[in-house]
Amino acid sequence: MAMGWFYLSVLALCSLGLMCILSTIYWISYWQGGFAWDGTILMFNWHPVLMVTGMVVVYSAASLVYRLPQSWVGPKLPWKFGHAAMHLLAFILTVLGLHAVFDFHSRRKIPNLYSLHSWLGITTVFLFTCQWFLGFAVFLLPWASVRLRSLLKPIHVFFGASILSLAIASVISGINEKLFSSLRNGTNSYSRLPSEAVFANCSGMLVVVFGLLVLYILLASSWKRPELGMQAERQPIWTRGWAGTR
Amino acid sequence: MAMGWFYLSVLALCSLGLMCILSTIYWISYWQGGFAWDGTILMFNWHPVLMVTGMVVVYSAASLVYRLPQSWVGPKLPWKFGHAAMHLLAFILTVLGLHAVFDFHSRRKIPNLYSLHSWLGITTVFLFTCQWFLGFAVFLLPWASVRLRSLLKPIHVFFGASILSLAIASVISGINEKLFSSLRNGTNSYSRLPSEAVFANCSGMLVVVFGLLVLYILLASSWKRPELGMQAERQPIWTRGWAGTR
Repeated sequence: MAMGWFYLSVLALCSLGLMCILSTIYWISYWQGGFAWDGTILMFNWHPVLMVTGMVVVYSAASLVYRLPQSWVGPKLPWKFGHAAMHLLAFILTVLGLHAVFDFHSRRKIPNLYSLHSWLGITTVFLFTCQWFLGFAVFLLPWASVRLRSLLKPIHVFFGASILSLAIASVISGINEKLFSSLRNGTNSYSRLPSEAVFANCSGMLVVVFGLLVLYILLASSWKRPELGMQAERQPIWTRGWAGTR
Repeated sequence: MAMGWFYLSVLALCSLGLMCILSTIYWISYWQGGFAWDGTILMFNWHPVLMVTGMVVVYSAASLVYRLPQSWVGPKLPWKFGHAAMHLLAFILTVLGLHAVFDFHSRRKIPNLYSLHSWLGITTVFLFTCQWFLGFAVFLLPWASVRLRSLLKPIHVFFGASILSLAIASVISGINEKLFSSLRNGTNSYSRLPSEAVFANCSGMLVVVFGLLVLYILLASSWKRPELGMQAERQPIWTRGWAGTR
């Protein structure tokens, strides 16, 4: 791939990811009263921002680490650590995002996990947790055989992409649900498409465009690290220095 | 891949697809008053059934045509026709599903296309339409060069999988929206998880499981038709009989 095209794509991706976060923050700040960490609706407001940031943008950045050509030369281990650490950051943001909604619900005596949005969301987070621990155990710790790693790698990549797709579906259903529940007033109802609805709908569509671009880069062969055999995969943490043999 | 495993997967997939359709029909028949084609809410009720059937199940079946080993030997053209024809059937069901909701809205003076669900849904159908016509023009009609087909094939496959992912996100947000708007009664509200909510949520999750299985089969290399060069791709409709050279 030409370097110009590569850097243009990276720039587009970073800008889109940033726009996803900023537009969610703007929506909540301008129309939903802003943020607080006090168990009120303002605490709930952290939920969409943290989920979009954690489960979509940071998760995507973490997933795309191996698509940087810089990761194709030299030792792979630092990139593996970067991949795991960024996913851990995504996971922490996600847990905070879940805490924001659970705490708000418990203080307002609203049941948790009743909507399809919440069922899908919690399933996505559960899959993400399994994926992180399995990835850590198999691809970072040294016990797994080359055969096991070769067997699990395509499944790890597939579930990586699937979890992002499910996160996007969760975000879409979440924004839709929030707009239906907050835009009920006759003159300001969702069906009349007030400015908040247009803005939040556009934010949701932005997340979809960002997600599709990430999935394309994740799955398109021209973006993949060239296969140099599984030799480097096998080297465990403590038998290999940061300046590895590759 | 072992034939036993293959047929077991096909059986699981067919059963899951059928369950997605039947559970949507059962939900609407048992809790939402059934179906009619008269502009009332009973006409709207066709919308979820036709979208799940068209955009998810038939679309998936059409996409998986080339994953059948029977399509890997002999002439490819009949399979291309099958692929296009089944997608056309999915498209017709989808248009009927859209007609059901637009007609209901216009008779009840409800605005069309205001929710994020509808924005995503109509974008998905638009992409599907472009994908079908582009696929027909490039892969069935004879004018496209081998180079153009090679260039467009991975994009065609990527958008095929993406459209299915977007369709699933649309279905999830649609079921969520329908349950929020119809389960409003205090004792029967969505948040109390009445039996309808549990059943419809499970139907939505079933669509997700089915979609993930389809995407895995679409993208996993072990399920793909072995590449025999682009020779067969080039043969146009009228220079090639049904008993081709392969």
